[in-house]
Amino acid sequence: MKRDNELAIGVDLGGTKILVALVNRKGKSSYSMKARTFSSSNSDIADRVIYMIHELLRKSGCGINAISAIGIGAAGLLDPDTGVIYESPNMKIKRDYDLKTPVEREFLVPVFVDNDVNLGTYGEYVFGAGKGVKSLVGIFVGTGIGGGIVLNGDIYHGFTKAAGELGHIIINFDGRPHPFKTAPKGTLEAYAGRIAIVMEIKKAVERGEKSIVPEIINGDWQSFKSGDFKKALEKGDKVVAKALNKASGYLGIGIASIAHVLSPEMVVLGGGIIEAAGSYMLPRIIKKVKKRGFEPCIRGMKIVEAEMEDESIVVGAATLAFNRSEKEFG
Amino acid sequence: MKRDNELAIGVDLGGTKILVALVNRKGKSSYSMKARTFSSSNSDIADRVIYMIHELLRKSGCGINAISAIGIGAAGLLDPDTGVIYESPNMKIKRDYDLKTPVEREFLVPVFVDNDVNLGTYGEYVFGAGKGVKSLVGIFVGTGIGGGIVLNGDIYHGFTKAAGELGHIIINFDGRPHPFKTAPKGTLEAYAGRIAIVMEIKKAVERGEKSIVPEIINGDWQSFKSGDFKKALEKGDKVVAKALNKASGYLGIGIASIAHVLSPEMVVLGGGIIEAAGSYMLPRIIKKVKKRGFEPCIRGMKIVEAEMEDESIVVGAATLAFNRSEKEFG
Repeated sequence: MKRDNELAIGVDLGGTKILVALVNRKGKSSYSMKARTFSSSNSDIADRVIYMIHELLRKSGCGINAISAIGIGAAGLLDPDTGVIYESPNMKIKRDYDLKTPVEREFLVPVFVDNDVNLGTYGEYVFGAGKGVKSLVGIFVGTGIGGGIVLNGDIYHGFTKAAGELGHIIINFDGRPHPFKTAPKGTLEAYAGRIAIVMEIKKAVERGEKSIVPEIINGDWQSFKSGDFKKALEKGDKVVAKALNKASGYLGIGIASIAHVLSPEMVVLGGGIIEAAGSYMLPRIIKKVKKRGFEPCIRGMKIVEAEMEDESIVVGAATLAFNRSEKEFG
Repeated sequence: MKRDNELAIGVDLGGTKILVALVNRKGKSSYSMKARTFSSSNSDIADRVIYMIHELLRKSGCGINAISAIGIGAAGLLDPDTGVIYESPNMKIKRDYDLKTPVEREFLVPVFVDNDVNLGTYGEYVFGAGKGVKSLVGIFVGTGIGGGIVLNGDIYHGFTKAAGELGHIIINFDGRPHPFKTAPKGTLEAYAGRIAIVMEIKKAVERGEKSIVPEIINGDWQSFKSGDFKKALEKGDKVVAKALNKASGYLGIGIASIAHVLSPEMVVLGGGIIEAAGSYMLPRIIKKVKKRGFEPCIRGMKIVEAEMEDESIVVGAATLAFNRSEKEFG
């Protein structure tokens, strides 16, 4: 039974921040809160999620009885059927960590867990740039590159539940080692993730090319943030423009390769780097896709920027929770 | 209504040969015929298909009333909903060629057309190596490299209907031009298709490496056939072994990349080169997938040889025709 005034809670659980929101059937968030993922008061991740949901309910004045379901998007490899996180390099949890059960026991409403990037893609599919398309690929470019796939209305998980690891597609088999060394070499992430782009800029600066980046970051390369790309572009920094142009080309090659496999109706690009430099990068990405893509696979494919920014994951998580709880519990 | 004695006709329409078969519900072909695609008596492709079906019915003694549906696997880019072939470099037909309508008008039974590689993959899914799996990727290595994808029981076509062009995935963005120049450079096909492998062998021979290939092919490189790989391997030819080892590595890299996108339960490898040298290549392909694949995406994925050889397309085509005609006409 769909009621327009129904609410679900969406949780975006990342390695550094946690965002919780009250979301209605129409994908509108009426109240949200953000905090650090790790706090001295909650040493356990599930405890932290539970605490944040209690805070959200208390501060918004919403009773738990008004909540139909809870959806959690977690950074990590997990099983969406059981809510168990196999591993998450950023969250300091033990392997096979059950996130679903403690949250479900605390609030006695259905809880659904999925990968954060999958839910960001799903959020864009239900209420963002991908509304109405039949197949959507989401690519989120930040420190790394995450991917999500929605086919015929459902998140596509594949056999291992780890499908859509689009940052790991190999674009150059003889290519660069992965910056974290935890993944195969020559991957899209090794060429177009933030770490790769910053390395490119740093090398150019060390070669003596003129750039305002050292000034923006005050000489501390570790402090380089996605927003700094925007600042540098606005000031006409050629080193940054060149590095982003190269990254756009790599992304275009990756998207071409993905299109040869999946031929999606739309590719949505999001994440910190696209939010900062999307207007510069998108035309360059599209140009490369057209150059390197096999035409029958890319004909009519749309490549657009994500529309929901920070909200895509909480809205995607809450909407998935609505839909799955209806499907599973009627 | 499923009847075990029902029959469909499967057609495998390639650039050089056409195979037609009577196939029952269990995927068994009771009668089949093979001929050249181009003949002096039938200048038009649809006429040729119609002629071959009449011959099949006549010689087998089967009446058209016993036939529930006709399925055609055609080499080319086409729309499976309308049966129109957009383009087919090997079949000398005009663009947007309607193959379905004339065949349907002639026999007055439902006709379904799909890409031949898609139907080969589907054949392996319903009655071959892929029986019972939920997601299957088929890779057919011959002159070029074709691909097909079956997800949850259905052929996956994607937005453009051209999904699964797996030979075109880019494995090295700075890499080799495509041998036909009709497709992007640095693709799997440019590295591991027959043309690429034969070029590799030819170069080694020209460098003076010892090989029995010049003797097998009598100096005519154009006459090199997939079966010649088998002959050379059996005689311990090191040049051929080295070239096939390299091609296996490229295929492994391509499969790893595909797994990062789709994470299929199984990859089925077929086509002339795999039929000739599969026992040599498969272990090498699997080794490379394990080395270059991101472990969470390839865990438990099976990589196996196709089981149906020449029959996969006619059986896939006939079975699809059974299933689609039931779905569409009850």
